[in-house]
Amino acid sequence: MKQTNVKPADGKLGIMIVGNGAVATTFMTGVFMTRRGLAKPIGSMTQYDKIRVGRGADKQYLHYSDIVPLAKLDDIVFGTWDVYPQNAYQAAMYAEVLKEKDINPVKDELEKVVPMKAAFDRNYAKRLDGDNVKDCKTRWDMVEQIRQDIRDFKQNNGCSRIVVIWAASTEIYVPVDETLHGTLAALEAAMKADDREHIAPSMCYAYAALTEGAPFIMGAPNTTVDIPAMWELAEKTKMPIAGKDFKTGQTLVKSGFAPIIGTRCLGLSGWFSTNILGNRDGLVLDEPANFHTKEVSKLSTLETILKPEVQPDLYTDYYHKVRINYYPPRNDNKEGWDNIDIFGWMGYPMQIKINFLCRDSILAAPLLLDLTLLSDLAARAGRYGIQRFLSFFLKSPMHDYTKGEEAVNNLYQQYTMLKNAIREMGGYEADEEID
Amino acid sequence: MKQTNVKPADGKLGIMIVGNGAVATTFMTGVFMTRRGLAKPIGSMTQYDKIRVGRGADKQYLHYSDIVPLAKLDDIVFGTWDVYPQNAYQAAMYAEVLKEKDINPVKDELEKVVPMKAAFDRNYAKRLDGDNVKDCKTRWDMVEQIRQDIRDFKQNNGCSRIVVIWAASTEIYVPVDETLHGTLAALEAAMKADDREHIAPSMCYAYAALTEGAPFIMGAPNTTVDIPAMWELAEKTKMPIAGKDFKTGQTLVKSGFAPIIGTRCLGLSGWFSTNILGNRDGLVLDEPANFHTKEVSKLSTLETILKPEVQPDLYTDYYHKVRINYYPPRNDNKEGWDNIDIFGWMGYPMQIKINFLCRDSILAAPLLLDLTLLSDLAARAGRYGIQRFLSFFLKSPMHDYTKGEEAVNNLYQQYTMLKNAIREMGGYEADEEID
Amino acid sequence: MKQTNVKPADGKLGIMIVGNGAVATTFMTGVFMTRRGLAKPIGSMTQYDKIRVGRGADKQYLHYSDIVPLAKLDDIVFGTWDVYPQNAYQAAMYAEVLKEKDINPVKDELEKVVPMKAAFDRNYAKRLDGDNVKDCKTRWDMVEQIRQDIRDFKQNNGCSRIVVIWAASTEIYVPVDETLHGTLAALEAAMKADDREHIAPSMCYAYAALTEGAPFIMGAPNTTVDIPAMWELAEKTKMPIAGKDFKTGQTLVKSGFAPIIGTRCLGLSGWFSTNILGNRDGLVLDEPANFHTKEVSKLSTLETILKPEVQPDLYTDYYHKVRINYYPPRNDNKEGWDNIDIFGWMGYPMQIKINFLCRDSILAAPLLLDLTLLSDLAARAGRYGIQRFLSFFLKSPMHDYTKGEEAVNNLYQQYTMLKNAIREMGGYEADEEID
Amino acid sequence: MKQTNVKPADGKLGIMIVGNGAVATTFMTGVFMTRRGLAKPIGSMTQYDKIRVGRGADKQYLHYSDIVPLAKLDDIVFGTWDVYPQNAYQAAMYAEVLKEKDINPVKDELEKVVPMKAAFDRNYAKRLDGDNVKDCKTRWDMVEQIRQDIRDFKQNNGCSRIVVIWAASTEIYVPVDETLHGTLAALEAAMKADDREHIAPSMCYAYAALTEGAPFIMGAPNTTVDIPAMWELAEKTKMPIAGKDFKTGQTLVKSGFAPIIGTRCLGLSGWFSTNILGNRDGLVLDEPANFHTKEVSKLSTLETILKPEVQPDLYTDYYHKVRINYYPPRNDNKEGWDNIDIFGWMGYPMQIKINFLCRDSILAAPLLLDLTLLSDLAARAGRYGIQRFLSFFLKSPMHDYTKGEEAVNNLYQQYTMLKNAIREMGGYEADEEID
Repeated sequence: MKQTNVKPADGKLGIMIVGNGAVATTFMTGVFMTRRGLAKPIGSMTQYDKIRVGRGADKQYLHYSDIVPLAKLDDIVFGTWDVYPQNAYQAAMYAEVLKEKDINPVKDELEKVVPMKAAFDRNYAKRLDGDNVKDCKTRWDMVEQIRQDIRDFKQNNGCSRIVVIWAASTEIYVPVDETLHGTLAALEAAMKADDREHIAPSMCYAYAALTEGAPFIMGAPNTTVDIPAMWELAEKTKMPIAGKDFKTGQTLVKSGFAPIIGTRCLGLSGWFSTNILGNRDGLVLDEPANFHTKEVSKLSTLETILKPEVQPDLYTDYYHKVRINYYPPRNDNKEGWDNIDIFGWMGYPMQIKINFLCRDSILAAPLLLDLTLLSDLAARAGRYGIQRFLSFFLKSPMHDYTKGEEAVNNLYQQYTMLKNAIREMGGYEADEEID
Repeated sequence: MKQTNVKPADGKLGIMIVGNGAVATTFMTGVFMTRRGLAKPIGSMTQYDKIRVGRGADKQYLHYSDIVPLAKLDDIVFGTWDVYPQNAYQAAMYAEVLKEKDINPVKDELEKVVPMKAAFDRNYAKRLDGDNVKDCKTRWDMVEQIRQDIRDFKQNNGCSRIVVIWAASTEIYVPVDETLHGTLAALEAAMKADDREHIAPSMCYAYAALTEGAPFIMGAPNTTVDIPAMWELAEKTKMPIAGKDFKTGQTLVKSGFAPIIGTRCLGLSGWFSTNILGNRDGLVLDEPANFHTKEVSKLSTLETILKPEVQPDLYTDYYHKVRINYYPPRNDNKEGWDNIDIFGWMGYPMQIKINFLCRDSILAAPLLLDLTLLSDLAARAGRYGIQRFLSFFLKSPMHDYTKGEEAVNNLYQQYTMLKNAIREMGGYEADEEID
Repeated sequence: MKQTNVKPADGKLGIMIVGNGAVATTFMTGVFMTRRGLAKPIGSMTQYDKIRVGRGADKQYLHYSDIVPLAKLDDIVFGTWDVYPQNAYQAAMYAEVLKEKDINPVKDELEKVVPMKAAFDRNYAKRLDGDNVKDCKTRWDMVEQIRQDIRDFKQNNGCSRIVVIWAASTEIYVPVDETLHGTLAALEAAMKADDREHIAPSMCYAYAALTEGAPFIMGAPNTTVDIPAMWELAEKTKMPIAGKDFKTGQTLVKSGFAPIIGTRCLGLSGWFSTNILGNRDGLVLDEPANFHTKEVSKLSTLETILKPEVQPDLYTDYYHKVRINYYPPRNDNKEGWDNIDIFGWMGYPMQIKINFLCRDSILAAPLLLDLTLLSDLAARAGRYGIQRFLSFFLKSPMHDYTKGEEAVNNLYQQYTMLKNAIREMGGYEADEEID
Repeated sequence: MKQTNVKPADGKLGIMIVGNGAVATTFMTGVFMTRRGLAKPIGSMTQYDKIRVGRGADKQYLHYSDIVPLAKLDDIVFGTWDVYPQNAYQAAMYAEVLKEKDINPVKDELEKVVPMKAAFDRNYAKRLDGDNVKDCKTRWDMVEQIRQDIRDFKQNNGCSRIVVIWAASTEIYVPVDETLHGTLAALEAAMKADDREHIAPSMCYAYAALTEGAPFIMGAPNTTVDIPAMWELAEKTKMPIAGKDFKTGQTLVKSGFAPIIGTRCLGLSGWFSTNILGNRDGLVLDEPANFHTKEVSKLSTLETILKPEVQPDLYTDYYHKVRINYYPPRNDNKEGWDNIDIFGWMGYPMQIKINFLCRDSILAAPLLLDLTLLSDLAARAGRYGIQRFLSFFLKSPMHDYTKGEEAVNNLYQQYTMLKNAIREMGGYEADEEID
């Protein structure tokens, strides 16, 4: 490794997960099993990807950990919050994502992960009925309690650093309100005034994490990290913030497939996406208010990849529709069906249909590993505020729209951004452009 | 446009097409209709794509024709060879690719394209029974007759330049024979000796074109352009040569979809591709000897994108199978069904199924336009021999394996190569690396 | 033909269609073209099907018209009502279901079909904006005007008999109200009181038709024919009544596929059905109130085929969901995607996915022909009231639930009912049982 | 139960299975688990189906065992032959069809099923390499050894009756040879003359079974039971014979789906079926000579359901193609993809695509149970020779073509035949007709 300005990854890294469900337990089980050599962390960029550094005769293909100082899997300690009190072993068994034989060897480690009481408000997720919940007088009190949890966890586990990541359900849609969410001062005032309509519990987690000097990552489509107040806080605390919504099944395919169409200058007349899923995430999304949050997040993908202003003959007025359907027989095996209507030479139509029989938690787990390790890396590299280089992992990537920034959704442009950031943190030259 | 060293595209460009069937007539009809403002050449990079030139503050997004001197559609003249004597209007109607209303406005122009007699050998395509065929004593005689056709066409139509492109059927598989195909001298000797087993008619077209100072492009999977003798001839005549096999349906999807898997470090256990198609191309491929040629061409795609030597945990021993089935009810509407078996976190399996209801000729037509215009450009730019920058358009791209070169099949790496070549010919700096 | 008690089909049959859109014009064009020998009425049971009559040594396989006196295609005269004033030729061209070459030969006949002003209430179909609409003071006035239309049409065209069929859009859901819809007297009172909330325009058409001595058929999922008042009217006027909702794409498949599962004693854990369609029908169904009408109609299919009370191990608690999505790129090419989750030996799960790329109007047209001809036959045979034997053609078949009757949705049981009715009207013995 | 003439099912029933692989072990495990109340024999007609007996007021819906005397699951004893020596527990674990937790409870019973040495000839299945094989001097000797096995098994296990069923691999295609296979005398002569080309090992099993007074059922597409000599033997020994080829995935769907098309008088222009499968059965079928046997069996299905002679406008010249592909990633999860090209009103085309993610052994297991129990029943009922009523379970049902009989492939006609036979054996009146 070159000499870099990134601080070394000394000591233990505490990964505190909001949610102790299918995604979180699949992630933790995989890390425990990998540490014992019993499983492989397939799908993780930090563990597998090799990227080019240098050019021409000097070029090399290196793993991330050979370029920058990443935390080691052995140095990770896990903590969770959840509205259900079951420990991670019980939750993993209930989730039925992994086979028993892939959970049992690390049963003891999973059993030790007992979720802390969740900061929860049932108005934000009506379909959840757990009662392992904090008693909070106000939203500000909610923040204080979460901060105390973080401090306790850090001390009890001897962690040198903490990262907080949201892997819980989608909350109902909270539109960004310029008055209440526009500045840190306004946000804090609303929290103190206990404005429960505009302050989602997830905002309290984010606020608490950043204030305690921990990067925060939003894995659901909640607008938590879309508000300027939170960016201001990240700047103030010099902490990374990232989101939103893990890019798992259908959007992964969309952000990878749309570039095929765009690169070949084929036209698009419509894209219809439907999902069927049956886990707790699906149950929550069956509630229209929660689905709306997800839909807003999912719809933006195409618009920034296939742009009518650049290719009016090809991408004007295509019809884009996204549907999510709760369908219990699928359980965690989320299934996507995409119908893509393209047109070619002389406007003649063609169809592409993609049926993705994926597994939500299996696709999400490596994203949690990468997002937490890379956020921790960014913090040590002194990169704070919005982390655009993590767009690769996210369905609706953060960008400062108040400065006219656009989201980058094209998977390959996102990948270039990721590689460039690793190169820069490793002391190598980045490629200047992403297209 | 910057000052470039490319010669200007003055005068008429003769595009001579081997084959006057569905692909060729769809191509010609589209060009005629576009010239009259009655259709749009969707899918054509030379007509639609904009690429970045310059970097940072200097960067601009320009159409190809604003970077390099491309021939104009108005300057194109068409000629064809075919075993069937029907003119291009009749052939277009027979093909049933385009609707009558999209053919009739240019009926007069199409009727003027009457195919010259084909250089044909029925042993190479048993299922074709046309008799608009040259009477050739030897393969060398075949070459001579084609050369005469090219000279006549050029003179009669007042063309300043000619490009020859193969858009005819797949021939039976001719394995590369180092002795007979290894040097130009050996090739010429075999032609003179009338070695009909090792010299396919397509080789005579390629030989004739290059010798007459015309670039040659192989649109079928024939091994014509895979033989060192032909490269030697291209070097000697300072002409571009390109191939092979137009990248239309399933392989386009494959070369664009495999990078999604690779980029996200997901594993692959198998990829099963089946095609059903019902046009004359399908009929020819129903003959095992002809199918073999196609299969060899299609199988190589994945191996260079997902490499076991780079990611042994992910890409060792995946099972790749390609099937092509003649199924008349589909006619030109070639349909692909891909079954992709991937695995993620801890090795858990997932499936992706892609059903592409494409139209073979609609996807191929813009490739003919781009390949001929860009080959003509390359010739004027003094770029001769194998044109790797045209890999983007081809299923099994040419590469000099005798020098250890590997084919580039990843659609986005191919695209970078294409953009770099345009940039360079336009006097701009290329991006150095393709990954 | 045996001697039967059915009155002969003498004179002209007037088929009056509510709606002059894609379905109606495809139907009429096909009849006109068939009469000239230019097309074939594929999909029509009355024109194609042969059924067994007699048993053992006496059995014969005969076309319907060789068993019973059906009206001839040559004796049909068409009339329509529509909110848009375009004649049937214009409407057929606009619909883009049929190719021009299949419409033009009968252009003159189609042009003569100019829709009468529709009895319409925009509250029942917000997305429709035509203004070829009757000015009606009350619902009773609406009835009177439609009756006058029927009398005028019958006289002007010299028809001996009339059938009225609804091929217009789905109205918003009107729940059956026992008080208002329970008796004919109550219904008439509500019409006179101009109760626009409970009396849909479709009820006025049905009332008018029956009163004028014409069978009425409901082709949309409107509850028009589900109300006891209408049955009472049909009994009183001794006229057949049939409905509801043409069984075209997805439900046809469902009613034919579910029996495969049931017959083999396989279990069902879930059935997810999604549709995408882009014609005017889809536009109307994009309005939630109109969709609700459709959903109620579509959901009932499975429940009567796969019965938990008969096979509790196999059919208890399966999850059945139906989605309809407006998606303009499909136009009339309605597409269904069904995901069927079954289980077999020891409860092991399997999946079946059916993707139906159908054409709504092409599938509906022969149903209109069969339903009108067979309703006319039934009238002449003295069979009045609910026509259960027409269940075969309908998504949500009529049945007198007040007498504990159940709908029959199994396609093969419906077919047996159809065959039995034809046999009986033809003077043959029916098979007694449908399973 | 009514008084019937069927002998009671007293004593133990020995089910001797040729093959101890995925299908056989899934079958046996399920029976063992069901006997202990730990699993349910879903998909089995004899255990689940209820059929109507009587008509009108007298009709009742009864389980088969309430109509006829079926052997009980508790009375079954299993024996197997296989080229691999592993016991049924080991083979079940190797097959990976069932989860460990569904095998382990009956491990002890499975371990006791140790396969006898197989009567095998590697020329009939090149891809199999097991060596648990009998040493046979001639085919006649092979017969003798199998007969001895049957006698020994019967005696050792105290069975009152034996049924032999083939659940082993597909052999290479043996065309029926009128001279050698036409009479029993000729067959016996060929066996004694050790004509290994015309006498497949499966014929020796069938001969041995029938001669020992055991019904024989052919579950693979081998021509074993298609030869008149074998029918003659069945008549002579008064034993039932049934076959061939278990109707599991794609053909089940085909025989159930084609009737939908036929019943609605829709036209068919083509049906393309492809399969991917990865178990030992797939490996064997990857050998062209073995595949040919399967292909012949699968192609006949449609022809007898959709008949051009009855509906020339609808079913003349449709293109039917079947492909089977060995694809190891699927293992036992055989997957079918059917593309059905239909046409409707005025000849307009539509497509249906069916993707069946099935499990071969899960679908086959209940067929073994039903076929063995029903063959045993037939034997006790004195019904010998070809058992047409078992067509329901078979891909290519037996029929005496020398008498002009046709195979019945329509699933519902087959079901009627099955029900009629049960009714008759139970002393009830059969419905006379199957359509």
